[in-house]
Amino acid sequence: MQPVAAGAMPMARAGTSWRAPIPGLVAGTSAVACADRGRNGMKLALFDDFIPGLVHGDRVIDLRGVIGAIAEAPPAERLPRLIAEFDRLRPRLEEAGRGSGLPLAEVRLRPPLPRPSKIFCCIGNYKEGVEAPMQPLDMFLKSSDAVIGPDDTVELPPVPATIFHHEAELAVVIGRRAKRVAPDQAMAHVFGYTCFIDVSARGIGQRSFIGKSFDTFAPLGPWIVTADEVGDPQRLRVRLWVDGQLRHDYHTSDMEHPVAEVLAWASQVAALFPGDVLACGTNHQGIGPVQDGELVEVEIERIGRMRVRVQDPLQRRWPKGVDEEMARRVREARLARNP
Amino acid sequence: MQPVAAGAMPMARAGTSWRAPIPGLVAGTSAVACADRGRNGMKLALFDDFIPGLVHGDRVIDLRGVIGAIAEAPPAERLPRLIAEFDRLRPRLEEAGRGSGLPLAEVRLRPPLPRPSKIFCCIGNYKEGVEAPMQPLDMFLKSSDAVIGPDDTVELPPVPATIFHHEAELAVVIGRRAKRVAPDQAMAHVFGYTCFIDVSARGIGQRSFIGKSFDTFAPLGPWIVTADEVGDPQRLRVRLWVDGQLRHDYHTSDMEHPVAEVLAWASQVAALFPGDVLACGTNHQGIGPVQDGELVEVEIERIGRMRVRVQDPLQRRWPKGVDEEMARRVREARLARNP
Repeated sequence: MQPVAAGAMPMARAGTSWRAPIPGLVAGTSAVACADRGRNGMKLALFDDFIPGLVHGDRVIDLRGVIGAIAEAPPAERLPRLIAEFDRLRPRLEEAGRGSGLPLAEVRLRPPLPRPSKIFCCIGNYKEGVEAPMQPLDMFLKSSDAVIGPDDTVELPPVPATIFHHEAELAVVIGRRAKRVAPDQAMAHVFGYTCFIDVSARGIGQRSFIGKSFDTFAPLGPWIVTADEVGDPQRLRVRLWVDGQLRHDYHTSDMEHPVAEVLAWASQVAALFPGDVLACGTNHQGIGPVQDGELVEVEIERIGRMRVRVQDPLQRRWPKGVDEEMARRVREARLARNP
Repeated sequence: MQPVAAGAMPMARAGTSWRAPIPGLVAGTSAVACADRGRNGMKLALFDDFIPGLVHGDRVIDLRGVIGAIAEAPPAERLPRLIAEFDRLRPRLEEAGRGSGLPLAEVRLRPPLPRPSKIFCCIGNYKEGVEAPMQPLDMFLKSSDAVIGPDDTVELPPVPATIFHHEAELAVVIGRRAKRVAPDQAMAHVFGYTCFIDVSARGIGQRSFIGKSFDTFAPLGPWIVTADEVGDPQRLRVRLWVDGQLRHDYHTSDMEHPVAEVLAWASQVAALFPGDVLACGTNHQGIGPVQDGELVEVEIERIGRMRVRVQDPLQRRWPKGVDEEMARRVREARLARNP
C-alpha cells in the first residue's frame, strides 16, 4: 500500500483508489535487471549439516573456508547473514566458485532458509485468464516453522480438512532492510529468488489463513538464485508436477501486482530483513490435491527445480488432477469484480 | 481442533460437530492449578540490556550469575532457553530470589520475549454477554517482529486504515514442546502468562489479518508469571485504560474456548516450543481507538500491569472512548449464530 500523505483524508476507507497501477513499473524493472546481466549470478544453498554452499552446474562448493564465523551461526541464520554481508563477501565467493566442489548428487540439499524471520504470502495476485479490475494487494503470514526443503516430506495432519492443495509460487528473498520503500526503489532490496510451495489445508480456520501454517507446509528451495542471474522476475515460467502429471504451468508476466509492488506493500507493514521471504501468490488454474505417497516437483525458469514427497497417515484420497471446481470458483470471483 | 481418527470420515467439512465443549475441562484445570499453589511462583523479566531477571515485589534480581551461557544467548532466546531448562534451574533461581536486587523503578523493563518463534492469536473467543452456539476456534499468526515491551511506543503507520484499535488479551507462554496434545493434557505445556495488546489496523487487508502485524503492534509484558503463581487462567480480570479512561474490563471466565483448548488446537497446527505465545482473544465490548500521544495501560489480575505510548506522525483523530459501533457489530454477529 502507498503511504498516506499528511492531511490527505487519512480516515478514507482502504480501496482500489490507493492501489492504482504504477505506470511503467514493470518496464522499468526489466531495464534494471537486464543492465545487471553482465555480472556473474550465484546460487546459494545449504547442504548436508546445513553447510553453506555455492552451486555451479551439478556441483556444490563448500563455503566454510571463506565466510568465517557465518558458517558457525545457527543454521537458520547462515544464509541470512551471508546475504546481509554479500557485497563484502562477493569477491571471496567468486574466488571460491572456481573450485571443483562435490557432485550435487552426493549431498543432501537443505532448505536454504530453514526459518526466515518472516514469510509474507500474497493472496491471489494472478490474472488467471480473466480480465478484471485490479484488486488491492493483500497478504497473510505463513509460519516460518513450517519450512522444509528439497527431498523433505510434506506431512498431512490428521485434521478434518476438506482437501490439501499445492500452490506453486515464485518467492522473493530480501537482500537489504526495507521499510516503507516505494515500488520504484523496491528492486534494490531484492537479493534473489527461490521456489516455494504454499501447501494449503482447506476448511480449517473458516475466517483465517491458518490452514497454510501446518508444520511442513512451506517447501522452499532448492537454493537461492541471485537477482542478477534471474533477470526480470516477471518473465519466468512456473511449473509443478505431481507424480509426473503437470499441474501448474503459468508465467509470472500474468502477475497482477509485480514483485516491486509486492515488496513495497509488505515493507509498509513491517521492516523486511535479509533472508525474509515474500511469496508472490499462485495461479489457481493449476491447483490440485496432494496426497499420500506422491512426489511433487516445482520448477521455475532460471531458478531450478525442487521435489518433495507427501505423507498422509490417514491415506485420504481425492481425484488426481487439477481441481477444476476450485479453478472455476477463482475465475468467477475475478469476473464478479467487473462492474 | 481434535485429530481425526483413521476412517472417521476424514473428508467431512470442518464444523461445530468436532469442536463440542469438553465436559469438566475448566473444573479439571482449576483443580490442578490450585493443587500447585503451594510452590513459589516466579516472575521472569528482561531488563536494561535484555538481562534476565527475577521480579520480587518492586525489585528485580539480576540472574546472570546463575543461568550460565543462557545470559549470553541472543536476547530473543534468553527467556525461551531459561524456560526450556526451568526445572533444572529452578533451585538456583529460588536461591537467587533471596537476594535484594535493584529497584524496578531504576531499570528499564524489556519485552520478556522480544521475538517469540510464533504468536498465535485467537479470533473472537469471548461470549461478550451474548449466549450463542459455540463457534469453532480459529486463529491467525501475528508477526513476531512486531513485539515491543513496557514503556515502548506503538507507532501508527502512515497507511489508510479506517481506525487503529487496542485489544487487551491474556497471553499464554509455552513451557514444554506441544504437538497434537489433547485438551486434558494441554495445561502441562503451559509455562506461564503475560499481558498482550493485539493492536489492530482496520481496513487494511480486506480478507486477511495482516493489519495486526504492523511493526510495534504486539506489546507484550511486563514479565512472565509462572502458571503456579497465576492459578486458574479462567479466573482473571483483564483491564485496559487509555489516558486513565477504562476501556476493557472483562473476565477470562467469559472465554468461549478456555486456555487448554486454545493450546490443544494450536498444537494441531504446529509444534509449539518454549517461549511461543498464544493470545487468547479479546472481549470487543471494551475495544477502542489508540491515537497520537496516548498512554495505554493493560493489567491482568495476578500477572501485572504494562504501559505503552502511542505515536502517530499523521496525528489522526477518532472519538476517545469505547468503539460502540464495533462492540455492537460483534454482539450482532454472535446473535446471528442462533438458529
